[in-house]
Amino acid sequence: MRTQVGIVGAGPAGLVLSHLLAERGIDSVVVETRGRQEIEQTMRAGVLEQGTVELLTAMGVGERALTEGARHEGIELRFGGQGHRIDFAKLADRAVWLYPQHEVLKDLIAARLATGADIRFDVTDVSLRDVTSDEPVIAFTEADGTRVELRCDVIAGCDGSGGVSRHTIPDDQRTDYFRVYPFGWFGILAEAPRSSDELVYAHSERGFALISTRTPQVQRMYFQCDPRERAEDWSDDRIWAELNARVAGDGFTLAEGRIFDRGVIPMRSYVCEPMRHGRLFLAGDAAHTVPPTGAKGLNLAVADVVVLARALESFFATGSTDLLDAYGPTASRRVWRAQHFSWWMTSMLHTDPAGSAFDLKRQLGELELLTSTTAAATHLAEAYTGWPIEL
Amino acid sequence: MRTQVGIVGAGPAGLVLSHLLAERGIDSVVVETRGRQEIEQTMRAGVLEQGTVELLTAMGVGERALTEGARHEGIELRFGGQGHRIDFAKLADRAVWLYPQHEVLKDLIAARLATGADIRFDVTDVSLRDVTSDEPVIAFTEADGTRVELRCDVIAGCDGSGGVSRHTIPDDQRTDYFRVYPFGWFGILAEAPRSSDELVYAHSERGFALISTRTPQVQRMYFQCDPRERAEDWSDDRIWAELNARVAGDGFTLAEGRIFDRGVIPMRSYVCEPMRHGRLFLAGDAAHTVPPTGAKGLNLAVADVVVLARALESFFATGSTDLLDAYGPTASRRVWRAQHFSWWMTSMLHTDPAGSAFDLKRQLGELELLTSTTAAATHLAEAYTGWPIEL
Repeated sequence: MRTQVGIVGAGPAGLVLSHLLAERGIDSVVVETRGRQEIEQTMRAGVLEQGTVELLTAMGVGERALTEGARHEGIELRFGGQGHRIDFAKLADRAVWLYPQHEVLKDLIAARLATGADIRFDVTDVSLRDVTSDEPVIAFTEADGTRVELRCDVIAGCDGSGGVSRHTIPDDQRTDYFRVYPFGWFGILAEAPRSSDELVYAHSERGFALISTRTPQVQRMYFQCDPRERAEDWSDDRIWAELNARVAGDGFTLAEGRIFDRGVIPMRSYVCEPMRHGRLFLAGDAAHTVPPTGAKGLNLAVADVVVLARALESFFATGSTDLLDAYGPTASRRVWRAQHFSWWMTSMLHTDPAGSAFDLKRQLGELELLTSTTAAATHLAEAYTGWPIEL
Repeated sequence: MRTQVGIVGAGPAGLVLSHLLAERGIDSVVVETRGRQEIEQTMRAGVLEQGTVELLTAMGVGERALTEGARHEGIELRFGGQGHRIDFAKLADRAVWLYPQHEVLKDLIAARLATGADIRFDVTDVSLRDVTSDEPVIAFTEADGTRVELRCDVIAGCDGSGGVSRHTIPDDQRTDYFRVYPFGWFGILAEAPRSSDELVYAHSERGFALISTRTPQVQRMYFQCDPRERAEDWSDDRIWAELNARVAGDGFTLAEGRIFDRGVIPMRSYVCEPMRHGRLFLAGDAAHTVPPTGAKGLNLAVADVVVLARALESFFATGSTDLLDAYGPTASRRVWRAQHFSWWMTSMLHTDPAGSAFDLKRQLGELELLTSTTAAATHLAEAYTGWPIEL
């Protein structure tokens, strides 16, 4: 079996790449270990940058994001018991859309399958071979037990942080950059009305909290916790008390309701360099992960494959590897910007367990400055809504 | 002996306050433990914000700063072996002036004495008494041995971080916020021509370096070092090798010359709150110190006393303490902005001894973003050249 681009992973990076390649008349096969149902039903938050929504729309798969997603023209930064709005529309003439990642994946999968795309779900034993040759191979076992060797011109490793692609780059030819934050996020889903029309990012002496939303009836909320915290040790009352303490003030009322999901997630940053090994190109979470504070994960995956698709188009049209050679350095620039932005949002809003009273006041000084000066607020608004995707 | 405002300390805060009060017809006496010659000859760097220069000019003491100082319309940020200019004039329509602090003090002392101001140099055994009464007292011994009790309506504590004023606020009524950075600055003065027309702030894997200037013939340079480093352990060759390694690249040439002064300074942040105790008001370094990276020390002292002079004018004109009561909270807003800015410049440009390769790449991501996007660069330019002084 043969294709031009073998894509490992049917997440945002792999599926958007498959679309972009099809638009350019380039053949691809997507290989995915999970089932279609699992992908489409694993609820994941989604903050889509305007550039991401524009890209999905241009690809013909943005309709539901635009109509069922919620356009947000700002966020609220809460500190010192008061809310301060960052007005994206006014400052950066841009917006973001809240539209869950699994809904994006549903749209992408449906559209790809409708045009006869080859997506293999439920495969096992995926391995990559001969990636430094001109004909790298993705070997895998189909759901029915058939062993397949997929010969490719190029492999795109879009299989996330737990996939095989990253580890196919030999240890001595790969640099792993990582940072583990000394806190986690305690997240809940609750049956409750919205507390706010926009996302609330709250700084408090007790730590960070984020009031987000899933639907008008279901709310997503997080608060900073010890990364070793056990979600099952917390009663509902204690969770609501903690959330309330972090967003209190200024007449803000947190709408409560039945908590039907809870869990603690770690906060980590990771970057793999280079993003390429021979004919294998990493994209999305396979190459980098960001803490969720900056809402950059999905958008960064999409930006990667925009650069990669352009490089592959040039490669198949001319045989020149110039743009493929430039893929890593080009994508990397945005990756490190996003790592910085995610670190900035995280360090500005979370309390450092090893920090002092000085650090807390310094954070408040930063937040006061950020919400009082146009240049600083514009910098945040531009970063949050996304730098131009053709960066 | 009696005055309206007793001022402890003839540094920037005390002398500018004395001027501003005289302009408003308010009597003051300045008490200083150092001699006039010592004050005027202790060389200190000086980056004057545009607002500071405008204030000095309006007070009639800005002539030399404007003519002998150097107007700088930008700085260079160096990283990854390349220089990137932050254009203050274009981004913020503002500039800074390089004019040493001791020259500012010379101008202020000469102007005050010319109008018959009462400045007592070389006093000893200064203590403050009855500061929570309506008639606080500054007790001190004159150079000739005479013991003096200076009765005041108000005392301004402008005697720096080592003075008595701060400690007159009882420990249990004062909060000391502080931060010690895990590095120091190795500073040299060298007989050499300028290496650059503007200040160079350099980020490198080996740590921060700053290429500054004193005169066309004398240059000031610093590089990040272990705070316990002993300046006398370094040969001239080793110093030049280290400085060169940190600014290398892009054709940059460091002009070398005879090193005639060297020393290691610690990097610290400090804030005292409240800035007031009864009729005692702290201003300048007595209330807060910043690491030198943001060049904010002198400017912050001047901004404090602008707020304080206005409050004292209102107090003596109407008897109302409203503006005096607001002094601390008003000045504090700028203080914490400046603490944040100084921390930001420091943490962006210095290597953290406990940091990882991730942190270094994250800094480069921030610097790339800062020098590529107008909003972020404007934020830096506005902060460096100074927020409006009437904040």
